Amino acid sequence: MTEARLLTPSERFDWLRLIRSENVGPVTFFQLLARYGSAGAALEALPEIARRGGRQRALNLTTKAAAEREMKAIEGAGARLVAWGEPDYPRALAAIDDAPPLITVRGQLQLLRRHAVAVVGARNASANGKRFAHDIALQLGARDIVVVSGLARGIDTAAHQGSLPTGTLAVVAGGIDVVYPEENRGLYDEIAERGVVLAEMPVGTVPQARHFPRRNRIISGAALGVLVVEAALRSGSLITARFALEQGREVFAVPGSPLDPRCRGTNDLLKSGATLTESASDILEALAPQLASPLSEPPRRAFIDAPPAIPEESELVEARRQLLEALSPSPVPVDELVRQCQLSPAVVLTILLEFELAGRIERSPGNQVSLL
Amino acid sequence: MTEARLLTPSERFDWLRLIRSENVGPVTFFQLLARYGSAGAALEALPEIARRGGRQRALNLTTKAAAEREMKAIEGAGARLVAWGEPDYPRALAAIDDAPPLITVRGQLQLLRRHAVAVVGARNASANGKRFAHDIALQLGARDIVVVSGLARGIDTAAHQGSLPTGTLAVVAGGIDVVYPEENRGLYDEIAERGVVLAEMPVGTVPQARHFPRRNRIISGAALGVLVVEAALRSGSLITARFALEQGREVFAVPGSPLDPRCRGTNDLLKSGATLTESASDILEALAPQLASPLSEPPRRAFIDAPPAIPEESELVEARRQLLEALSPSPVPVDELVRQCQLSPAVVLTILLEFELAGRIERSPGNQVSLL
Repeated sequence: MTEARLLTPSERFDWLRLIRSENVGPVTFFQLLARYGSAGAALEALPEIARRGGRQRALNLTTKAAAEREMKAIEGAGARLVAWGEPDYPRALAAIDDAPPLITVRGQLQLLRRHAVAVVGARNASANGKRFAHDIALQLGARDIVVVSGLARGIDTAAHQGSLPTGTLAVVAGGIDVVYPEENRGLYDEIAERGVVLAEMPVGTVPQARHFPRRNRIISGAALGVLVVEAALRSGSLITARFALEQGREVFAVPGSPLDPRCRGTNDLLKSGATLTESASDILEALAPQLASPLSEPPRRAFIDAPPAIPEESELVEARRQLLEALSPSPVPVDELVRQCQLSPAVVLTILLEFELAGRIERSPGNQVSLL
Repeated sequence: MTEARLLTPSERFDWLRLIRSENVGPVTFFQLLARYGSAGAALEALPEIARRGGRQRALNLTTKAAAEREMKAIEGAGARLVAWGEPDYPRALAAIDDAPPLITVRGQLQLLRRHAVAVVGARNASANGKRFAHDIALQLGARDIVVVSGLARGIDTAAHQGSLPTGTLAVVAGGIDVVYPEENRGLYDEIAERGVVLAEMPVGTVPQARHFPRRNRIISGAALGVLVVEAALRSGSLITARFALEQGREVFAVPGSPLDPRCRGTNDLLKSGATLTESASDILEALAPQLASPLSEPPRRAFIDAPPAIPEESELVEARRQLLEALSPSPVPVDELVRQCQLSPAVVLTILLEFELAGRIERSPGNQVSLL
């Protein structure tokens, strides 16, 4: 197994500045790294790329001072910044398309090197649902599996409590130091001590509605599979399950009475092919092949290799107009754009990068983009 | 569609005598009919066949007087005797391997000509389970589907109650006139008036434990599919579901909490591939092709054609010894016996018939036989 490498302090600093800059999301981050060879070089190129994408006012780059303040705040919160591909970065998470380039973590970091299963569900869970989540987390822990959840009320809380003694990972939607909901402060403190807390957002970020789906992709991404214990239709847990499917993770669901609205979502997952789960053994059986193999190798991305050639400006002028016409407010797969516009992938990726940095498009899961 | 034919009064009388005779079950009944051309001819041949099978004392044939008494009792119970293949014999039931040659029925017989779905489950059902069974029976009834069940406490009772206004069929384990459990006498009376009651056993039979599995094969056999609402592991409802599978019927199950032992059996069915059912639409969707087509043609069996040749005694002597050796107290498929002993199917069937009438073997579902 290749030893995962550590970033140098200055690389880490540039990574932080780049990912915190305006309009730079994980997909763009890694594309910039691939194109420019390093975060530092990408930072220098950013303003020009955004300008070419049609940006009028200057792009808001994260200043060195701001990055230094965040570094200090992370230390102050008793946390650490871990980069994609470093030894403490969860291997499963590193494999997803839009893996966070940097995460903030706090607690027993060695837990991040173990296999994990997510246990999530309704905030307004039934007493039985909570008991089930607690017990199955305990059973998974007894098999050395780390239990991932979202520190929410209800199922999440029970799952964390059940796995506290053996290994629990709380992925929070805001900053590493922001406890939400407030009633879980005691549990948060226990997890920070005995388990691990993980955040993608900068220290101090108060979670907004839009942060939760982003957080959910990390819950499923960090796990081999996601168990949904109780969930209403159109609930956050079903978003996590959908991410799990997109990421090639197993989805497990606990059956429940059709008369209980909290079981509609889980029963629906079962109808769609989720594995019916009555106890930990259902999960252990389905994940046996993954659990038997060691954690996957540290992943490699193109950015370790030489950056690819960037298309000439002459190639791009007409292509920009074509792509703008093809884009719409409803998300469209990038592959579809390449096919429809009959442009080379390199040209399309270059222009989408410009548009994104200019704030004209937004990326969504499944490698899709939409006009803002 | 071929018009199903009615038996003549004397044929019906002979059928009754034959099926009520000692050691004659449904499979044997139809084999005898196929071999001897009529029930009357089979009755005459019975003592000799049993003797050849090793029977020492005389076989207990049903006397004409006993058959006449039963005919009278059926009339006295306000019931009718319906033969396999007659217009009032449920088409779906006629298609199973061990269909009862004669059934006693009472109530609105036209319901027996409609498509049916069985709804069964735990006697000690939860309030929610009973409510669910009642409501789904009502929904199925609204789509002109007759609901079949077993008149037991709990789920069965709720299913009958929900479908009373539209069409309900109670298959009882004892005689048509024996109400079991006693607390369901009121429901029984209502069903006899507005729905149908069906029995395989003679009038007056008090149901014994061994009658219930036999009854369950009729519940599933009379239906296009079986819905199990709540069921513990190793419960009678799971036997009905197993019969359904053997008979090529659809199996439906309602999901429930893994913490409730009454849902273990149903969740187990879901794991084995039963269709997860939250409402009648799940059933209607899965059965759409069957529901869209008219009831199947009245079935035909070999007994309508000329009887096949019976093997010579010289062929049978050595074969009897071979088969006796191959048989054991654990059930073995008849096909397996044919293969292992390298005998012709005609020889094996002939000898098994002899052994059965002699009381030396017993038939079990899936065309299996075992030594008594």
